[in-house]
Amino acid sequence: MTGSQKHIIGMVFYPGMTALDMVGPHQVFSALPGVQIYRLWKTSDPIKTDDGMVILPDTTFENCPPLDVICVGGGLGQAAVVDDPETLDFFRKQGSTAKFITSVCGGSEFLAKAGLLQGYRAATHWTAREQLAKLGVEVSTDRVVVDRNRITGGGVTAGIDFGLTIANILCGEEVAKIIQLLMEYNPAPPFDVGSPEKAGAELVAKAMLFMQGISTLELAKSVS
Amino acid sequence: MTGSQKHIIGMVFYPGMTALDMVGPHQVFSALPGVQIYRLWKTSDPIKTDDGMVILPDTTFENCPPLDVICVGGGLGQAAVVDDPETLDFFRKQGSTAKFITSVCGGSEFLAKAGLLQGYRAATHWTAREQLAKLGVEVSTDRVVVDRNRITGGGVTAGIDFGLTIANILCGEEVAKIIQLLMEYNPAPPFDVGSPEKAGAELVAKAMLFMQGISTLELAKSVS
Repeated sequence: MTGSQKHIIGMVFYPGMTALDMVGPHQVFSALPGVQIYRLWKTSDPIKTDDGMVILPDTTFENCPPLDVICVGGGLGQAAVVDDPETLDFFRKQGSTAKFITSVCGGSEFLAKAGLLQGYRAATHWTAREQLAKLGVEVSTDRVVVDRNRITGGGVTAGIDFGLTIANILCGEEVAKIIQLLMEYNPAPPFDVGSPEKAGAELVAKAMLFMQGISTLELAKSVS
Repeated sequence: MTGSQKHIIGMVFYPGMTALDMVGPHQVFSALPGVQIYRLWKTSDPIKTDDGMVILPDTTFENCPPLDVICVGGGLGQAAVVDDPETLDFFRKQGSTAKFITSVCGGSEFLAKAGLLQGYRAATHWTAREQLAKLGVEVSTDRVVVDRNRITGGGVTAGIDFGLTIANILCGEEVAKIIQLLMEYNPAPPFDVGSPEKAGAELVAKAMLFMQGISTLELAKSVS
């Protein structure tokens, strides 16, 4: 590290993560002036995401310098990792000195299990709200929640709004606006069903069944 | 390939691509029932994206079966690849039989240079509109353009709207809605500057300068 780095951001990648949870904010962060990003995991092995991509982490937990921002996302493979002592220790260690402790989607469960979200308001994927509340977190249905130095986003695509919110905090409004423009973030969703509140009970029930189908399929793929 | 596959989708990855251009639609496609996705490049070498991630392609052009959907995105490294004869030949060959010929962001330039977009309306990143028009394409400022079997998206984040549009076409409205809900695509951009029309001339000028700065930095990184 050199003195010219202004913000050291670590993003924890893991097998079965949802790629878009991290790639959304990663795309924002990578455009910030004076930022160094580490893509972290326990090992240097290739990581298969829950949508079947393979991404290489570049830094192990052991080799990771103290982070200004620590960030983690959710994924269908999360359950197999979220109680891993080495991973939770890494969050606790980095969380004790990081300026911002952050997550997208189901990633908030890592922070909660590391004891970093109790007493804070936080967002998560809508399917994970109940589970996060059980861990003693004040769960919000907001898309992005900033509570002191905990910054959390809702499910998957919320990572883009989350990333731009952090860009604004770290580098100011003009930079955040420029990045939003360069990413042409002028969304036009084809349907108005992007939250359980908007989608209604019937579609929510179908989506839960659909997700179970994907999870089963992904599990089959990961052992094949 | 087995007879149970309903849609064969090929996404062309290349060095210097913008990760989010492809990861947005990839996240949608991976959730579609009966879909097989190939992540393609000329070689099996790891690909460094323009935001510094490393992704592994899984299939070479040579080993790629006939595709139902071919898809490519843009990126700061695009200029070094977009005139490559082997790459353009691949688009021409697959484009002659594919059911849908598609792109996100500056990826439309690949299709145009392969002769696949002349006589069609198409979208691209706002900074690339002029260049695409010079190639004989009827450029649209719409976020997603469906013109017969050419489906094109605007810059970067438009890939999510683009992906959901294709999900609707391939698998119907209910599946597309379920995926939108599971991806919690209920966007809340922090600013209203996501298109050049909304951002205004001053921010557009600043964004162009900012992008040149990123490009220079990325070029330095890629040769380091």
